[in-house]
Amino acid sequence: MYVSHGRSGQPSEQRTATFTGTVHADQVLNAPEVMINTVIFTPRARTHWHRHPGGQLLVVTAGRGVVATRDGDIHLITSGDVIWAEPGEEHWHGACGDSLMTHLAVSHGTTEWGGEVGETDYAAAQP
Amino acid sequence: MYVSHGRSGQPSEQRTATFTGTVHADQVLNAPEVMINTVIFTPRARTHWHRHPGGQLLVVTAGRGVVATRDGDIHLITSGDVIWAEPGEEHWHGACGDSLMTHLAVSHGTTEWGGEVGETDYAAAQP
Repeated sequence: MYVSHGRSGQPSEQRTATFTGTVHADQVLNAPEVMINTVIFTPRARTHWHRHPGGQLLVVTAGRGVVATRDGDIHLITSGDVIWAEPGEEHWHGACGDSLMTHLAVSHGTTEWGGEVGETDYAAAQP
Repeated sequence: MYVSHGRSGQPSEQRTATFTGTVHADQVLNAPEVMINTVIFTPRARTHWHRHPGGQLLVVTAGRGVVATRDGDIHLITSGDVIWAEPGEEHWHGACGDSLMTHLAVSHGTTEWGGEVGETDYAAAQP
């Protein structure tokens, strides 16, 4: 059993290589089956395209953002929303253009990263 | 992709058969790989012993509770704590004797239920 009571004094990490814009993350828990992070996105910030062999759960904790799949699904997500990206389903998520967004991300299996989400795709996903 | 924006007008469910005490649950999301519920426990309420073939994630959202494994691990859990019960790991969770507890529960695979958590085991797990 893995239990995280929060982080005491550990620095947050700025995420750059596979993200666009300003994103910071705290690792919450790291078990063989799952990697759990709290992630904050400033307005316009978002992940690159990615997928997880075992799927990914997002629990939105603040703000307003977007999740989109390669197949063309687009969802506006706000505080309290819960999202399950199925195993292997390519997607991205991030903040809206005018809003921060924070979520807990539970990733099953090693993340497979694709390319950046371009301005056209990002703009098309805005509400 | 499965997205839950919360529940509009659906009744909460009282859980009895595999719980002790007063427990209510809202199903948040039901995908092939995961079943997600918001669960509230009144003081002294708890699950029966159980395990999940793919593991179970708990995100504590309010109050103070306990999680315990068959192997003897006991953890006090409070708002913001994140718990990962490994695949097949037998455990139970519930509220403290003097406090409510609420959590989001993400269950991977069909729950295998064991017996009730007796008063002695419950008392021994209190902080």
